[in-house]
Amino acid sequence: MASALRLMPSTATRLRFRPRLSFSTAASLFSPPSKAVLYDQHGPPDQVLRVEDVPPVELGERGVCVKMLAAPINPSDINRVQGVYPVRPPLPAAVAGYEGVAQVHAVGPAVTRPLSPGDWVIPSPPSFGTWQTYIVKPEDVWHKVRDDVPVEYAATVTVNPLTALRMLQDFVKLKPGDAVVQNGSTSIVGQCVIQLAKVQGIRTINIIRDRPGSEEAKEKLKQLGADEVFTESQLDVKNVKSLLGALPEPALGFNCVGGNAASLILKLLRQGGTMVTYGGMSKKPVTVSTSSFIFKDLSLRGFWLQKWMNSDKSEECRTMIDYLLGLVHEGKLKYEMELTPFSEFSMALDKALGKHGSQPKQVLRF
Amino acid sequence: MASALRLMPSTATRLRFRPRLSFSTAASLFSPPSKAVLYDQHGPPDQVLRVEDVPPVELGERGVCVKMLAAPINPSDINRVQGVYPVRPPLPAAVAGYEGVAQVHAVGPAVTRPLSPGDWVIPSPPSFGTWQTYIVKPEDVWHKVRDDVPVEYAATVTVNPLTALRMLQDFVKLKPGDAVVQNGSTSIVGQCVIQLAKVQGIRTINIIRDRPGSEEAKEKLKQLGADEVFTESQLDVKNVKSLLGALPEPALGFNCVGGNAASLILKLLRQGGTMVTYGGMSKKPVTVSTSSFIFKDLSLRGFWLQKWMNSDKSEECRTMIDYLLGLVHEGKLKYEMELTPFSEFSMALDKALGKHGSQPKQVLRF
Repeated sequence: MASALRLMPSTATRLRFRPRLSFSTAASLFSPPSKAVLYDQHGPPDQVLRVEDVPPVELGERGVCVKMLAAPINPSDINRVQGVYPVRPPLPAAVAGYEGVAQVHAVGPAVTRPLSPGDWVIPSPPSFGTWQTYIVKPEDVWHKVRDDVPVEYAATVTVNPLTALRMLQDFVKLKPGDAVVQNGSTSIVGQCVIQLAKVQGIRTINIIRDRPGSEEAKEKLKQLGADEVFTESQLDVKNVKSLLGALPEPALGFNCVGGNAASLILKLLRQGGTMVTYGGMSKKPVTVSTSSFIFKDLSLRGFWLQKWMNSDKSEECRTMIDYLLGLVHEGKLKYEMELTPFSEFSMALDKALGKHGSQPKQVLRF
Repeated sequence: MASALRLMPSTATRLRFRPRLSFSTAASLFSPPSKAVLYDQHGPPDQVLRVEDVPPVELGERGVCVKMLAAPINPSDINRVQGVYPVRPPLPAAVAGYEGVAQVHAVGPAVTRPLSPGDWVIPSPPSFGTWQTYIVKPEDVWHKVRDDVPVEYAATVTVNPLTALRMLQDFVKLKPGDAVVQNGSTSIVGQCVIQLAKVQGIRTINIIRDRPGSEEAKEKLKQLGADEVFTESQLDVKNVKSLLGALPEPALGFNCVGGNAASLILKLLRQGGTMVTYGGMSKKPVTVSTSSFIFKDLSLRGFWLQKWMNSDKSEECRTMIDYLLGLVHEGKLKYEMELTPFSEFSMALDKALGKHGSQPKQVLRF
């Protein structure tokens, strides 16, 4: 029965050797014991989350056991634990985390997909419970990805870069030379928008907050390929379009801030333009004048990756993941992250919660 | 040369007799002297508008001279005079008014369209300058309409009923049994939405202001076919959808008010629904939460009839005008108006400006 298992990296030779698995009976395969970040009730993550040993899990016929390599702490992970996100795992004993990269550890005897031990895989679409050292999920969950990119990019490729890519594709048909405008441009999605637009020949107009260090932030975004970067106060002028120089008026805008930063996007959009809201960092709503709708013919939409992926898009999703990791490999897509050992989970969580001021995206390294 | 003219009602026999026209030379036809509502500069309509004699106008080869029968005073007419509407006639000596119905008085010798004196015609798409007793415009401007409906309906069929009809068609594919929600339901567009939806088997949820007489207003809208009518305060409850009873959650909403009345539409719309803004009677903007965009996936759009008609839709526009006047003829489309003689223009204007409290739509009778 061990011969039904493929274990450890061996794409060339498919060596088969004994896995570090638990066996309860001759017919049942189990994962190794695992450590997971669990919660039984919603609340402040630093109060309700606990790291705990989890007993081995049975693989079943078509289960795949993976060893997690890395998983990020995304704002939506925090919101799920807080209970303020509409789609969340059931309680109690929910395992936190939603995306990440893992290495195949063992596959069940009836697994038909070409997954071999050692392969890098991501749950695609993402699925709950990635903050855990070993995970067992059905084979369909796992998408094999290239292993020649930094682990933290494979761990984070879905939630942020895929959002940026979809938003550039799903709302307005853009062609090279067109422009888009966005706020929250220093966010990872914002940085991805800049770089993915650049690959497509699309210009970006970027809005950032007024704060100490905004000049450095501008410089950094320009190095990523941003065509223009303005602080909110720079755009607080009557003839805002005169600031655009030779850039065309943008047909599409991305809002992840709300409040004034959203109004600036509406102001910059061209006649008939579309603003897509995908976040609300300022906690302020979007306010729109009647004339923006009637005379300027603006459309306001929303984007939620989770909804897009629910609509039977898993193949398309995987194709785009491969494309994005290809760009990472070519050095065309990058953003700042900090790898923190899983053993220092509390520290990573505190940083993600903003307790130590502005910090890079935290990625747990297992 | 008089033989080149077709005059007065005569669809069967095409009798030709001498028109009341001025002739400057044997080759030139002129309209009768006319009275027009003119303005030379933008400002308060009761200050800048004046009724004045206008000299005869030459018809030219393909001109058609019409005698206006009736023309409404729409809010957009007021806004054009005030100078706050984006599309307006050039100054000075602009003639006010935008829609209306007329009777063909005389046609130029090279006119090829089947327009005979006595025919009822409307400018379609509407065009500037309908507050005038005689008008000369090229033959293409005029659309012949049925003359067996009340003159005030033919005069007003474009700006309000056509807006309602387009909004029901252009944004969401509705099928019988679906529901729409609207605010400002007592407006003429609102009343048209109720009746046109009913013709298509579409249910309407209607929001009106809290004010003395709201019970009577509810009753009146229900008699037009409204399925539900709520005042804003009635909808100020947590579980607003429980008020809908057996009605489906609406997929489409129409906003002509803004502020809280727009927020109520957003609250009532179903997941993935669309709100179309076509007015802003409260002068308050539309405010939208981030989660309405992301998690509820609402779309916000605008509708402006003038833009729709600019986009080469004149044939479609005329087909719809005929459909709407057919409904009027069948008694399926009605709304309250007051005919005021053109000689009492100042009184009609004061009523339209709200100087005498809430008044029915003013329609000038020439």
